Amino acid sequence: MHNLSFKDAQRHVDEWIRQFEEGYWPPLSMLASIMEEVGELAREINDLEGYKKKKESEIKTTLRLELADIIFSVICVANYYKIDLEEAFNDIMKKYTQRDKDRWTLKRTF
Amino acid sequence: MHNLSFKDAQRHVDEWIRQFEEGYWPPLSMLASIMEEVGELAREINDLEGYKKKKESEIKTTLRLELADIIFSVICVANYYKIDLEEAFNDIMKKYTQRDKDRWTLKRTF
Amino acid sequence: MHNLSFKDAQRHVDEWIRQFEEGYWPPLSMLASIMEEVGELAREINDLEGYKKKKESEIKTTLRLELADIIFSVICVANYYKIDLEEAFNDIMKKYTQRDKDRWTLKRTF
Amino acid sequence: MHNLSFKDAQRHVDEWIRQFEEGYWPPLSMLASIMEEVGELAREINDLEGYKKKKESEIKTTLRLELADIIFSVICVANYYKIDLEEAFNDIMKKYTQRDKDRWTLKRTF
Repeated sequence: MHNLSFKDAQRHVDEWIRQFEEGYWPPLSMLASIMEEVGELAREINDLEGYKKKKESEIKTTLRLELADIIFSVICVANYYKIDLEEAFNDIMKKYTQRDKDRWTLKRTF
Repeated sequence: MHNLSFKDAQRHVDEWIRQFEEGYWPPLSMLASIMEEVGELAREINDLEGYKKKKESEIKTTLRLELADIIFSVICVANYYKIDLEEAFNDIMKKYTQRDKDRWTLKRTF
Repeated sequence: MHNLSFKDAQRHVDEWIRQFEEGYWPPLSMLASIMEEVGELAREINDLEGYKKKKESEIKTTLRLELADIIFSVICVANYYKIDLEEAFNDIMKKYTQRDKDRWTLKRTF
Repeated sequence: MHNLSFKDAQRHVDEWIRQFEEGYWPPLSMLASIMEEVGELAREINDLEGYKKKKESEIKTTLRLELADIIFSVICVANYYKIDLEEAFNDIMKKYTQRDKDRWTLKRTF
């Protein structure tokens, strides 16, 4: 048994898309899709946290799918441009660790 | 040697954020961050594909970090709401496989 | 008979919102609403221009309302922060006129 | 002396853009620009309201320009599709008046 890796996810998406003659959409269309997904995420979060409260049960089930939709769309763009997300993610974690270590208050552990 | 999994990434982000007293930002602030990142992604893609062309070398290096930034922000929201992204991603792939199999043209393999 | 001005629009929105006890939403909620609207606009434009083509008649009628929705949401934020959009818009037109006059190709008029 | 109307603003933008040979960008590029602007607005509002506080004076001056930038970009899309924003805005106000009159709490005026 093994956990889903970024590499697996990038490969799954690639295999799935390559089934279709259209292949990847042009980048500006993929971007528009990301905006759609983020717009839906905004609706969910506004419903959970904001002023247009809905029943929480209605929302949580879709929230997780919205987040996965964004991951999916980001993977599409990464695949299109041949970007290795594992590498990029590791770089980001390094960048944040450097940049932000003085920006917030570290917990005292003593 | 093992590849970075979604579970690893969610745990890394969680460990990193739990160092700080502030912890996770409120969801609407995390959402605003996602919008910032997607806005930056939009700039990169418009520069690569659109009318405001820049030199490609300038862009590719930042594009991969923008994508990883979005992944990072999505993981923050997922962690905050205790959402397992591996599970959610697998569900999305199933949903797409069902929903879209008749929407586009499957390549003929014969 | 007179045309709708920015000032009129800002006042209409303000009068409409002040009817309700809740008044303006907190800014991060208004921002999330803008993202919802922009996400819907992205869907419309992707449908018109991109790969997921729908019938144009279905779309044009909603596109104009999405655009007006964004204007409405922007006016809410402006009103909340007591920003005069007419003034700000005039400043932007000046900024663009200065900044961009050398960036694109002016039509030859001879 | 007369106030800037939506019609004036649509005409100003159109005249400004028609100076350039490129004319309007393709809709998916204009959409990406809207996302850039909204991303910048998100940064401003997160700075004002969220956890990454900056000095308020730094921000207010740019916030008004971000809002006007979004208005500008929305007008570009409207012009491209020959949409009359005054009409659309009036329709939206009617729609909200109908739809929302029972959704929030009207102030008692007695």
